[in-house]
Amino acid sequence: MEKVVNLCKRRGFIFPSAELYGGFRSTYDYGPLGVLLLRNVKDAWWRSMVQLRDDVVGLDAAILSSPRIWEASGHLANFTDPLVDCRQCHERWRADKIDGVCPSCGSTDLTEPRAFNLMFKTHAGPVEDEATVCYLRPETAQGMFVNFLQVLQTTRKKPPFGIAQVGKSFRNEITPQNFVFRTREFEQMELEFFVPPAEADQWFAYWTAERLRWYRELGIPEDRLRLRQHEPEELAHYAKATADVEFLFPWGWDELEGIANRTDYDLKAHSAASGEKLEVFDPQTQERYVPWVIEPAAGATRTMMAFLLAAYQEDEVGGERRTVLRLHPRLAPYQVAVLPLSKHERLVPLAREVLGLLQPVAMCDFDVTQSIGRRYRRQDEVGTPLCVTVDFESLEDRAVTIRDRDTTEQVRVAIDQLVPEVCRRLFA
Amino acid sequence: MEKVVNLCKRRGFIFPSAELYGGFRSTYDYGPLGVLLLRNVKDAWWRSMVQLRDDVVGLDAAILSSPRIWEASGHLANFTDPLVDCRQCHERWRADKIDGVCPSCGSTDLTEPRAFNLMFKTHAGPVEDEATVCYLRPETAQGMFVNFLQVLQTTRKKPPFGIAQVGKSFRNEITPQNFVFRTREFEQMELEFFVPPAEADQWFAYWTAERLRWYRELGIPEDRLRLRQHEPEELAHYAKATADVEFLFPWGWDELEGIANRTDYDLKAHSAASGEKLEVFDPQTQERYVPWVIEPAAGATRTMMAFLLAAYQEDEVGGERRTVLRLHPRLAPYQVAVLPLSKHERLVPLAREVLGLLQPVAMCDFDVTQSIGRRYRRQDEVGTPLCVTVDFESLEDRAVTIRDRDTTEQVRVAIDQLVPEVCRRLFA
Ligand SMILES: [Zn+2]
Ligand SMILES: [Zn+2]
Repeated sequence: MEKVVNLCKRRGFIFPSAELYGGFRSTYDYGPLGVLLLRNVKDAWWRSMVQLRDDVVGLDAAILSSPRIWEASGHLANFTDPLVDCRQCHERWRADKIDGVCPSCGSTDLTEPRAFNLMFKTHAGPVEDEATVCYLRPETAQGMFVNFLQVLQTTRKKPPFGIAQVGKSFRNEITPQNFVFRTREFEQMELEFFVPPAEADQWFAYWTAERLRWYRELGIPEDRLRLRQHEPEELAHYAKATADVEFLFPWGWDELEGIANRTDYDLKAHSAASGEKLEVFDPQTQERYVPWVIEPAAGATRTMMAFLLAAYQEDEVGGERRTVLRLHPRLAPYQVAVLPLSKHERLVPLAREVLGLLQPVAMCDFDVTQSIGRRYRRQDEVGTPLCVTVDFESLEDRAVTIRDRDTTEQVRVAIDQLVPEVCRRLFA
Repeated sequence: MEKVVNLCKRRGFIFPSAELYGGFRSTYDYGPLGVLLLRNVKDAWWRSMVQLRDDVVGLDAAILSSPRIWEASGHLANFTDPLVDCRQCHERWRADKIDGVCPSCGSTDLTEPRAFNLMFKTHAGPVEDEATVCYLRPETAQGMFVNFLQVLQTTRKKPPFGIAQVGKSFRNEITPQNFVFRTREFEQMELEFFVPPAEADQWFAYWTAERLRWYRELGIPEDRLRLRQHEPEELAHYAKATADVEFLFPWGWDELEGIANRTDYDLKAHSAASGEKLEVFDPQTQERYVPWVIEPAAGATRTMMAFLLAAYQEDEVGGERRTVLRLHPRLAPYQVAVLPLSKHERLVPLAREVLGLLQPVAMCDFDVTQSIGRRYRRQDEVGTPLCVTVDFESLEDRAVTIRDRDTTEQVRVAIDQLVPEVCRRLFA
């Protein structure tokens, strides 16, 4: 864990926010490599959930949101943690995380627990009053429910079909922890899949299998991935069944994604609150009904962290130790590094020509400093699957060397065959 | 304008947020087609600014941000609008938008103008006090300045080089207006390009030309695009020069993007506030210096709106009027629509096979309802460049028809040549 956190900082994946000012309340910024990896995680999800299917459409709802949504969904009343105040030192604690003793001053003079809402509150408009209160959404899901009718009408989709969304959500966690695993600002990848009630169990099973497949296909090893069915007493009030996709983090098994059978709870809640019927018409029975919802809800930032942890390895190459991130080519920040053997004035222009050929098809790094061995190690360490080296022979034979990150094998390829060869190795 | 707004709502580009509850304070949600178009606008920017260059790296900083950043940047003191209260009806107005008379009740009994800060304020942590105050960022730019040293250290870049970011920003505008042109929650695409001071003017000229080229290349016509240099008295206090890229909206010329020479103002401000030297070393002069910054800062949502407005046309095809969005293939929500000629049980499976071939390379729609002519019109209206039709002959000859949105010409292509042919037409 510490090695990965250090790598993240040293190589520009993740920085503590406002480090210049001593950091800021467990928020993080994604640096040059982190932003590429995080984009790739989200794009791989979108590709799998939206682009490669014709029964799912996308949505991008606003973060600033109406209190009426959160009133109807139950978040205003129930999305709370129990907090106690220490009467001695005035610190505030989560009641379920302390044992009747203030961890700061040792006093036992604590208030009774009070419900503390986890939604961030602000005001949209010129006056700070009740009329302008709004909330930063604590989940993207409600955006799909309140736009359900509009999506139905504009797309002519019928159950089974889904609405997918990737975007930021905000929860005022009292104890953010484990690096980017639990932070107040985080990014979700959620699908709400609407089905006829009689098909809910079968779609729940389908999405459970499908989501596990996604993690495996992108490189999470079998022995660090598991599915955990919630016990009946663990279930949220709206869920008939929930299964967590868990990853073996350094601190133990923890949740990457929850797949829930939310029944018709949400659509009915918004129907009741708005007076609009959120229903669909079944042409077979000639009746209208409220669909049930199967929801696979993943966290983009914690998924990124799992991919990093699973990819991290130290091995030996030619008697030399190296650190290597065995990231899937679709996830690696850079897919290709173009490396002129030296800074020689004849090599760099040809290397730039090669770079220009590859940039339209892959995210490329270009590095001219230090020995070629050192540069291979630097690329291994950040997971670049392919290095393309331009040497003095390239000037004669218009060919370059492709080096593979995992095997460290090198093959010679003609420059005019380079693009298809690189595409084949990365995306085939 | 009204036609485009109606199209946006009718076909699922843009919905007013929380319409189910009567809408919410000029916020908007992007529907199934809007989210695709908006993603494509942002991806086209990222491709041009990050992927196709080796002198720009990316960043993704947090939205929740430290007051110390905004104190140093000047936003806490200066990012304000002057507001007056009506003592009669207690409404609040922007002082520069009314003429001493309350637009609501007609009273002239108004307070003196007071500075109203446009940043959204909230609290991160269990207590609402000064120690937990934080702000939703009003711009992405400061994220690049406060991470300047970390990016330098982790990427080994040297000026001239840039840091690019795409993400949401929030401004508590008193008068949001013109649909998604000015909203409280919006999405920015910003580049901070760091240069030696002596090269600032030349890089300002470079980025001005480069950004104009980007809009033109993606389909904004010459006569609706212009560059407007700011007069000296218009310049922000930190800027030595600013040029706006303007688009001819239905309400007149208005800003898509500002390109500013921000000098060394921001890095010096954060240096002074943090005590850290934000400098680079010049190996030629052997001296350290503070780079100057050229900033092209665009709005993703208003750029999307400009692309929609520019693409909207009504023309006549075979004596029939049609609406067509002549969107660039990189921007169109769907690149391809796969259409079986009818719902016939032998056509649909083959059409699905064709769909499966195309989905990995393009965003595809699949539509089986209504006549083929109606379906062509529906695709024209949302800008789909290519329709691929599977008919009864396809069952015999394993070929399909490609129809071009702009010319409405149709050509027959063998299914095993379809993917390269579609890629050539879309991306060549
Ligand atoms: Zn205490
Ligand atoms: Zn008044």
